[in-house]
Amino acid sequence: MTEKFDHFEVSDVRFPTSRSLDGSDAMNPDPDYSAAYLALRTTTGETGYGFVFTIGRGNEVAVAAIRAVEHLVYGLDVDEVLSDMGGFWRLLTHDSQLRWLGPEKGVMHMGIGAVVNAAWDLYSKRQGRPLWKVLADLTPTEIVELIDFRYLTDVLPADEALDLLTRALPGKHEREQRLLGDGYPAYTTSAGWLGYSDDKVLALARAALADGFTHIKLKVGADIDDDVRRVRMVREAVGPDIKLSVDANQRWDVGDAIANVGRLSQFGLNWVEEPTSPDDILGHVAISRAVAPVRVATGEHVANRVMFKQLLASRAIDVCQIDACRVAGVNENLAILLLAAKFGVPVCPHAGGVGLCEIVQHFSMFDFVAVSGSTDGRWIEFVDHLHEHFVDPVRVVNARYLAPTKPGSGAELKPGSVKEFGFPDGPVWRNLSEFANESGRY
Amino acid sequence: MTEKFDHFEVSDVRFPTSRSLDGSDAMNPDPDYSAAYLALRTTTGETGYGFVFTIGRGNEVAVAAIRAVEHLVYGLDVDEVLSDMGGFWRLLTHDSQLRWLGPEKGVMHMGIGAVVNAAWDLYSKRQGRPLWKVLADLTPTEIVELIDFRYLTDVLPADEALDLLTRALPGKHEREQRLLGDGYPAYTTSAGWLGYSDDKVLALARAALADGFTHIKLKVGADIDDDVRRVRMVREAVGPDIKLSVDANQRWDVGDAIANVGRLSQFGLNWVEEPTSPDDILGHVAISRAVAPVRVATGEHVANRVMFKQLLASRAIDVCQIDACRVAGVNENLAILLLAAKFGVPVCPHAGGVGLCEIVQHFSMFDFVAVSGSTDGRWIEFVDHLHEHFVDPVRVVNARYLAPTKPGSGAELKPGSVKEFGFPDGPVWRNLSEFANESGRY
Repeated sequence: MTEKFDHFEVSDVRFPTSRSLDGSDAMNPDPDYSAAYLALRTTTGETGYGFVFTIGRGNEVAVAAIRAVEHLVYGLDVDEVLSDMGGFWRLLTHDSQLRWLGPEKGVMHMGIGAVVNAAWDLYSKRQGRPLWKVLADLTPTEIVELIDFRYLTDVLPADEALDLLTRALPGKHEREQRLLGDGYPAYTTSAGWLGYSDDKVLALARAALADGFTHIKLKVGADIDDDVRRVRMVREAVGPDIKLSVDANQRWDVGDAIANVGRLSQFGLNWVEEPTSPDDILGHVAISRAVAPVRVATGEHVANRVMFKQLLASRAIDVCQIDACRVAGVNENLAILLLAAKFGVPVCPHAGGVGLCEIVQHFSMFDFVAVSGSTDGRWIEFVDHLHEHFVDPVRVVNARYLAPTKPGSGAELKPGSVKEFGFPDGPVWRNLSEFANESGRY
Repeated sequence: MTEKFDHFEVSDVRFPTSRSLDGSDAMNPDPDYSAAYLALRTTTGETGYGFVFTIGRGNEVAVAAIRAVEHLVYGLDVDEVLSDMGGFWRLLTHDSQLRWLGPEKGVMHMGIGAVVNAAWDLYSKRQGRPLWKVLADLTPTEIVELIDFRYLTDVLPADEALDLLTRALPGKHEREQRLLGDGYPAYTTSAGWLGYSDDKVLALARAALADGFTHIKLKVGADIDDDVRRVRMVREAVGPDIKLSVDANQRWDVGDAIANVGRLSQFGLNWVEEPTSPDDILGHVAISRAVAPVRVATGEHVANRVMFKQLLASRAIDVCQIDACRVAGVNENLAILLLAAKFGVPVCPHAGGVGLCEIVQHFSMFDFVAVSGSTDGRWIEFVDHLHEHFVDPVRVVNARYLAPTKPGSGAELKPGSVKEFGFPDGPVWRNLSEFANESGRY
């Protein structure tokens, strides 16, 4: 009997991270890292996993968005879908009624991304290889077929993408061996959250250096005088040779960004991240020109490939920060990798959160093997947080991500974690709620 | 006792418009015009109404988005909220956890818009005046306080907005009288849906002329040869003096848009609407330069004020098409009106759908009285469709919107319509579902 896609099993999973201020920044003071988590079942019992990452409240809206896609997938032939993943992407993304809810942005687009990623997880598991390797083994023609070039052709037509991938073929096998041997560079944000005391920041920065990190990132954007003080403090602690980036989490208007980066640049910044609204392409152009040689980075909140196209083509950004769960999954991230490669802009993924490291590492590794061919000036973000909940957690050793070797995309949570942190009825949240009733805090 | 905001009553209301192909276009072949409809109740029984407009599937995601805002509003003092609507807007839009789901775009932003609009509906009813008049009676300072200038200050700082509004004060009373006497110009899209036969299009175009319309709009974007044929046919039927706009509903890439508008421009186009992705600011700049003097219009899918800022500042668009339910409600539309005024770009709202005409007319009327001071080159879109479901439907006479005189924003649906078209359990949908089981069509 033919294998079909069966039901969606969608779970609302939330980790009460706000209690420790892990992940706190100037825009997001009290995140509860959460996942609208999809188990995509087939009629023969195979399962692919994907999720939308959120920071707490509203995770149920992402759950609703994933469920809204179910009718498009239910009953499809699994072999047919997996042999035409480009067509599957278009089927979901171009459903006219769901498209109205974006178009191609926000919760609906993120929900579609979870479904696309779940199908890729299934595909990789079937192939018995990790996602990065599955992608790296595709031919240039097969990769181009995965990408929807709608709205991209003025900047990157399909034939140019094909050329770009074909030119990257030489050395592919050797790069894969290097990746398997040496891993991929990481930087860390673990030290830099805004809610932490100075002592904690300094201790964590020193710990990061001891762990081999040579690039760390600090959160800024609350108060510029305090930012100057903290960045100076950390620069003095880590010395001049460590790369130091700062992340303003969209707190500044264009004028503020230019002025504030001007003040911070004395401490030698590797990049300034999210200086203003991720929608403000022309604003980023202005900031980028004004603060050079400090490099401008953004991407974790950039809604789709059309926005990345403009940010890259206009030289608004010097660092392209893809996110595994913001755009519509693997296929759209492939388009963004190719756009970045065309303009020679290094891709340094956003990670942290919950499960973002696990998925996004595959994209950087694929990029190294099959697209850009380089790790120069490239790092995957690393935050040492919540990995224990994943079946195949990232392995970061001496500040390098080791290449995953197990089949899949990394998105699969341990079943026990899905139950324990289920919202609002999992044991963790029921206990918190009892505590709240006693203390009045929740 | 102090009046507080009480619960949200949210309804999923869908009209089965796809059966008649009303509203069909190249991107949206079979819309079921729908509303995620909010009744915002207070403890003393007052109610304000607002909604997210969608085209069918996924309306339940918009319902979830509205519900996600309830905890922010529940228990707030009504007098305090209504006396600081700028603060209320910021409270909803800057909730850090909900903001992650956009930021400021897509379903979550539209859900917040419904809540903001419902509060304005309540405010207008309390004041006993229609929304346009409530807004027009505010002082420039009061208007500026309603607007969040975050991310706008590089292009429109608050003091410049204040100047702009102050310069518009002379003649305000006289314009209000003219508005009350003459109404506001309308154009119609009723004739131009793609699903209609040639005969139906021609008959409806002639009917529009007989009703006094001097500006009509046709849908294009499916097949350019057929578009050329249809636009020629309509131009020949209506003669050279009628303004004819075309709407491609985002179907084209940048290169296609330039080539296709080039072919259509021989028929004398008033504007070309949504030539490509609403996110493609730089694409619109390229199109706009290439197709001049044909004017470029967009806005119904533009996510927020930051995108409008760039479209206007870069001269990417010549016509600014605000939408009542895409951005975060009244306050954000005020920001967009001011941005358009700064660049001298006429505002021609998107309407049609369900209830969009009813709300958006207030913004154009306010714009005429208190901002731009002009109706030259400005029309509100009109589609004669589903108005019968509203408590205070628009009145369009001789191709002009008569100024509403009843209190409120126009968003209130008849309670009977909310019940009858409730999805999936209202009588209309239950009957369709029985029909479906018999015919196998649904």
